[in-house]
Amino acid sequence: MPINFPAITYDKDGIHETAAVEDDFFSAGQDKVRWVDAGSLSDEEGIRALCKGIGIHGLMVEDILSTRQMTKMDCYDDCLFFVLKMLRYNAETLSVESEHVGIVLKDGCVISFQEQGKDIFSRVRIAVREARGNIRRFGADYLCYALIDTIVDNYFDIIEELGDTTDLLEEEIINSPDKSTLKRIYFVKRELMYLRKSVYPLRELIGSLSDSTSMVIGQEVRIYLRDVHDHLIQIVDSVETYQDILSNMLDTYLSSISNKTNDTMKILTIFSTIFIPLTFLAGIYGMNFDSIPELHMKYGYLLFWGVSVVITGCMILFFHKKKWF
Amino acid sequence: MPINFPAITYDKDGIHETAAVEDDFFSAGQDKVRWVDAGSLSDEEGIRALCKGIGIHGLMVEDILSTRQMTKMDCYDDCLFFVLKMLRYNAETLSVESEHVGIVLKDGCVISFQEQGKDIFSRVRIAVREARGNIRRFGADYLCYALIDTIVDNYFDIIEELGDTTDLLEEEIINSPDKSTLKRIYFVKRELMYLRKSVYPLRELIGSLSDSTSMVIGQEVRIYLRDVHDHLIQIVDSVETYQDILSNMLDTYLSSISNKTNDTMKILTIFSTIFIPLTFLAGIYGMNFDSIPELHMKYGYLLFWGVSVVITGCMILFFHKKKWF
Amino acid sequence: MPINFPAITYDKDGIHETAAVEDDFFSAGQDKVRWVDAGSLSDEEGIRALCKGIGIHGLMVEDILSTRQMTKMDCYDDCLFFVLKMLRYNAETLSVESEHVGIVLKDGCVISFQEQGKDIFSRVRIAVREARGNIRRFGADYLCYALIDTIVDNYFDIIEELGDTTDLLEEEIINSPDKSTLKRIYFVKRELMYLRKSVYPLRELIGSLSDSTSMVIGQEVRIYLRDVHDHLIQIVDSVETYQDILSNMLDTYLSSISNKTNDTMKILTIFSTIFIPLTFLAGIYGMNFDSIPELHMKYGYLLFWGVSVVITGCMILFFHKKKWF
Amino acid sequence: MPINFPAITYDKDGIHETAAVEDDFFSAGQDKVRWVDAGSLSDEEGIRALCKGIGIHGLMVEDILSTRQMTKMDCYDDCLFFVLKMLRYNAETLSVESEHVGIVLKDGCVISFQEQGKDIFSRVRIAVREARGNIRRFGADYLCYALIDTIVDNYFDIIEELGDTTDLLEEEIINSPDKSTLKRIYFVKRELMYLRKSVYPLRELIGSLSDSTSMVIGQEVRIYLRDVHDHLIQIVDSVETYQDILSNMLDTYLSSISNKTNDTMKILTIFSTIFIPLTFLAGIYGMNFDSIPELHMKYGYLLFWGVSVVITGCMILFFHKKKWF
Amino acid sequence: MPINFPAITYDKDGIHETAAVEDDFFSAGQDKVRWVDAGSLSDEEGIRALCKGIGIHGLMVEDILSTRQMTKMDCYDDCLFFVLKMLRYNAETLSVESEHVGIVLKDGCVISFQEQGKDIFSRVRIAVREARGNIRRFGADYLCYALIDTIVDNYFDIIEELGDTTDLLEEEIINSPDKSTLKRIYFVKRELMYLRKSVYPLRELIGSLSDSTSMVIGQEVRIYLRDVHDHLIQIVDSVETYQDILSNMLDTYLSSISNKTNDTMKILTIFSTIFIPLTFLAGIYGMNFDSIPELHMKYGYLLFWGVSVVITGCMILFFHKKKWF
Repeated sequence: MPINFPAITYDKDGIHETAAVEDDFFSAGQDKVRWVDAGSLSDEEGIRALCKGIGIHGLMVEDILSTRQMTKMDCYDDCLFFVLKMLRYNAETLSVESEHVGIVLKDGCVISFQEQGKDIFSRVRIAVREARGNIRRFGADYLCYALIDTIVDNYFDIIEELGDTTDLLEEEIINSPDKSTLKRIYFVKRELMYLRKSVYPLRELIGSLSDSTSMVIGQEVRIYLRDVHDHLIQIVDSVETYQDILSNMLDTYLSSISNKTNDTMKILTIFSTIFIPLTFLAGIYGMNFDSIPELHMKYGYLLFWGVSVVITGCMILFFHKKKWF
Repeated sequence: MPINFPAITYDKDGIHETAAVEDDFFSAGQDKVRWVDAGSLSDEEGIRALCKGIGIHGLMVEDILSTRQMTKMDCYDDCLFFVLKMLRYNAETLSVESEHVGIVLKDGCVISFQEQGKDIFSRVRIAVREARGNIRRFGADYLCYALIDTIVDNYFDIIEELGDTTDLLEEEIINSPDKSTLKRIYFVKRELMYLRKSVYPLRELIGSLSDSTSMVIGQEVRIYLRDVHDHLIQIVDSVETYQDILSNMLDTYLSSISNKTNDTMKILTIFSTIFIPLTFLAGIYGMNFDSIPELHMKYGYLLFWGVSVVITGCMILFFHKKKWF
Repeated sequence: MPINFPAITYDKDGIHETAAVEDDFFSAGQDKVRWVDAGSLSDEEGIRALCKGIGIHGLMVEDILSTRQMTKMDCYDDCLFFVLKMLRYNAETLSVESEHVGIVLKDGCVISFQEQGKDIFSRVRIAVREARGNIRRFGADYLCYALIDTIVDNYFDIIEELGDTTDLLEEEIINSPDKSTLKRIYFVKRELMYLRKSVYPLRELIGSLSDSTSMVIGQEVRIYLRDVHDHLIQIVDSVETYQDILSNMLDTYLSSISNKTNDTMKILTIFSTIFIPLTFLAGIYGMNFDSIPELHMKYGYLLFWGVSVVITGCMILFFHKKKWF
Repeated sequence: MPINFPAITYDKDGIHETAAVEDDFFSAGQDKVRWVDAGSLSDEEGIRALCKGIGIHGLMVEDILSTRQMTKMDCYDDCLFFVLKMLRYNAETLSVESEHVGIVLKDGCVISFQEQGKDIFSRVRIAVREARGNIRRFGADYLCYALIDTIVDNYFDIIEELGDTTDLLEEEIINSPDKSTLKRIYFVKRELMYLRKSVYPLRELIGSLSDSTSMVIGQEVRIYLRDVHDHLIQIVDSVETYQDILSNMLDTYLSSISNKTNDTMKILTIFSTIFIPLTFLAGIYGMNFDSIPELHMKYGYLLFWGVSVVITGCMILFFHKKKWF
Repeated sequence: MPINFPAITYDKDGIHETAAVEDDFFSAGQDKVRWVDAGSLSDEEGIRALCKGIGIHGLMVEDILSTRQMTKMDCYDDCLFFVLKMLRYNAETLSVESEHVGIVLKDGCVISFQEQGKDIFSRVRIAVREARGNIRRFGADYLCYALIDTIVDNYFDIIEELGDTTDLLEEEIINSPDKSTLKRIYFVKRELMYLRKSVYPLRELIGSLSDSTSMVIGQEVRIYLRDVHDHLIQIVDSVETYQDILSNMLDTYLSSISNKTNDTMKILTIFSTIFIPLTFLAGIYGMNFDSIPELHMKYGYLLFWGVSVVITGCMILFFHKKKWF
């Protein structure tokens, strides 16, 4: 019984596409590259049948189906198995959404699984159809590389968007930080953390794969994998740089709030310390004692103003000396 | 003299259960899997007898009996010894309670020890009885894996509960942090720390075991162990992610309190600096000097109000320019 | 000339104790275990003679005599040399006091040196005398293990006491932190740091010793050393856990002080902003202008109270809206 | 068709310069050192032709052209490929500007690529022309070293300028920190971070190259590479030192602001707590109760002043005892 | 032409000193230890001649002359080259001053270079002259060790002085922290950082040297080098301990300032909230409304005092309940 996933069979001379995986798919055409792209995880039964057809261990099938599973790679002598995370940056909620992707490379077949069927590999399918670049000249290992490369390129886009947000935040922190800045720093830091958690293990896995002695990946394709590895190093570096920048920002932000609080305090202190003694003075001459001699002095009221001006002057001098303004 | 712990002997064809370990338990039925589950640590004498029966070193017996002993593994050529911690999350006290578990695998026998007899391995016992999954087809090494897997699966549950609490705390921090938030962040951080201390060494141990050349674990079961290892990597990753999120939260919380203090200060400062000079002015014209010319001016009182309004206006302009409101 | 340190010669059949080390001590009885316990470092000359007798390098002698020397191990083909720190926790000053201990194992002889002669090895001496446990059945390497084990067991006691103090501090932090809490956190953190500095290198040393190919430690005793190693791993883990808890506490403490400052500010702000305008109002009607129409209104005074109540009400509404109480 | 980049061919006896790369450039004169310096990345077609001429893999060409590519090295048996970052410190904006540089060493040819054509290698070109130092006596590997050394020397200049800025900031922090100090600390920290990201991988690459068994770099030139490696270690060390100093500064700054806020608070508190009770007292005797006996005492007014002085004295004593001034 | 640096030639039988290095110095007396101590770096020409005489690579000469060069070691089959930093602690400025030192060991010759000619190696020279200790019995490798040991011993002195300063600071922090404490913590932290930067690489270098298979250092001298290595481990440990203590202090200091600010706030709040309502009350009865019935009550004034006392009492109860005093 055929399995309802689109299948492509190609070599450098030709390409053959079918809407479903035929029963003899895995046994026929061994010298050609065969690619099945299971668009979504909804047809669990079909996926299990497919996995059985190519002969994958049951634990791998669980990994393919469990969207909770994080980035991992299993490398056997004749089989390569990837769980990857396709990421999508949502600029509105400042959050990174992830999509579960599985890739199996075995016996010249590549099977790819996507979580939500958003057809993230369309670019590769078009390249295969139109024989763009090297893809038709190489074998299934190159196809596998092309799929991984698609996902990694996508990480670059996210990094750039998070980088732009970081630059905006930096400008805000330096010029006019407010409370929403704090929230956004928090969110971007969290997303960078998730991103790093996805990319870091992949870097290690691709690195070890390009250096491994496994025969699943040919010598020529390894050079391309090393290029992907370089990209992943660069992405991890960028993520860490942005993380450091954001930590630096948060420290600076905290210091700048403390600075502001101190400034607020200074204004209050200057006003209070100038007027409180003056108000006391005014209070004294508002008292109803029978005999307050100053009240009956000729220039009493003027003297009061004189004393007030002197007190104010002294206060201002005092704060000036303390370099408060 | 038989030892009073329930014992199970099984192979793929049949199963035999006894309420106590017979004297010839360890010598008979070498081709079958034998499992003794010492429900609790209360019968110390029985445990010592059991350990002597299977021939475990005295230091291991101490480790089994000492609930203070942390996660460890001893791997010999013919014997595998685990000390594990079964964890239970108490959502009310926000604390993780741990239970001491010991597992010994030797000569086709598995002996498991639990601290409090809550029968955490009932799921495995049922699987054995009802021949669910692969358990009856494999040997004692698979049984040992199944016991460890039960404990590791349990860690996932705890991680999920702590994750939910973390998400709630995040929402609180962003929207309306209060003092209880701080306490709860503290508690969740502490519990994650304990969890990490339990899981991290286990990850290393299972990793080294699945790569080791020891013959205690068969080649086929190693694939399952590697799966457990993957799970442990994922758990440690999650724990570290939540720890980073909580640290990030605490920093943000501290900044947001400082922000609030500054806001409180601003309100106080605005009110004080507006009214203090006005009160001083009112104080002046409450003085009893003989000759205060303003008091007898025709529109003196109106003038006073005029001046007050002007002062207030200047203050409001000043604070507006400083972007305080 | 005999050296005045008590010496014990024993094997599994018998034991012979002398008050001083005889001249032929190191040459006679090669098949027995010989143990000299130099109680204190006061008799420097005796120690030098003893070291010369057994043939220790001059640099080791310096390490034995220098109490400044930190934990170290020298492992040669025929000789094992330890410098250890016996620790004692002083609950009153919250400080850990250390005592310098040296242990030499060579040619079936064990020589132990203590700083202050508090006889920390009495438990081992009694075990030898009364042939408790395995000590008389094993050789000098087991004796050496027993001495080290005594010291490591002692670390457990200290960890427990520091742990108790930490738990007390945690309760204080959560319920009613005050200034002495801060001081005590500081002290406990410092002592944990010192403890870690003593234990961490020892863990590495015992670990490498139990894995080394040196013949000084027999195969059977290595199992015991591995047990000590496990204990040291556990101690370091506990120390690090407590350190993390205390850091966590300090962060929480800082946040909770900021919270308190904000609360204090709020009380001040509420009171000030309510009463300052009222006082201004009262000040106005205390002025002596010739014509203040309100003063002569029939219900002037009642009106004044009415306005005051309205102002107060508005303020309370304002602060209620801001969720200040 | 010749490619329009200046080319130099030299050995220890002579030098030959051409304005363009002739068609037989890569095939002729194998025993001489040949250097093509592609001044800028604007002539992409020329660069592709040049790369094809010497036979570089297409992925390397992408790395040369992509200014986003970070520091990397590819080391093959017959080919050495570097991507480096030339840095320039802009003292006005406190920012480090980077320029993309590519260097290829293959078959006795060196090809260098610069991003903006600022001729950063002029010093090396002059040394070659005028046979300064050892450059004409050694082969293409030494030329390659000379180019890298030029870039690394340049890092030293930047480190020195950032170090000077750090010293200035330190002086400010200790003596009179203000808000611009905070901003500048932020910027210098960020630039040091970028610098470290450029230098750190280079240090690793040069280190591995000087230890590698690749034949591209001769034994004699390796000593020079080790010297560059030493310089890079020193640069990374300096960067890390300055980073630590700046972190230390920021902590100190935050503490010193808190100190200042406390001082501001103290002034306010002293003034308020002295005058508030006095003002209350004055208020009392300004009341219009029918019978306030004190108002009619003979020395009532003097007594009032006496009480005021006593209250003030007590307050001053109180604050003196609290060591506030 | 002789080079003007004092030279010493010695073996265990005799010693021969000359004021200048003779032309045949490096060729004659191969079986003796020869030591040239270039007192300062001022005679650059002499140093270059000396280096040429013994046959050192030009890059090493640059390292000797460049005081910017940090701690390093080059270890060849026949030559050992050190750049070290002699440190001097200036207790007044709380800063560590460094002096550049170079040591070359080749063919039984030791050449030492100092930056400022303060004769830091006089102790070693006297030991050689007076045949103290083992120095005359061993070869040039022991002399080299003796020079390094002199410098490392010196580090101990500095560590002790910084440790004393740290202890003083700790006492201040606990009892009466003020602003100069903060500055001094900053300075001591910075100096510890510099010290660590000098000592840490040396530790690695001496460690690798004592384990290396190079024949430059004899088997017997290696034991001494291992002792130096132990000392360096101890120094690095101490430095890290003090750094941790100082970080701990700074955290505690920040918390204690926050505590103080809160205390200051409390005093202000208590005073203000008690007196502000009272002042308002006094203001009311100072108003000139025609009809304020309370003013004409018989015990009006007493009642006023009664109300005031009640208000004050309530306030005090309120603050007492809040545990403010």
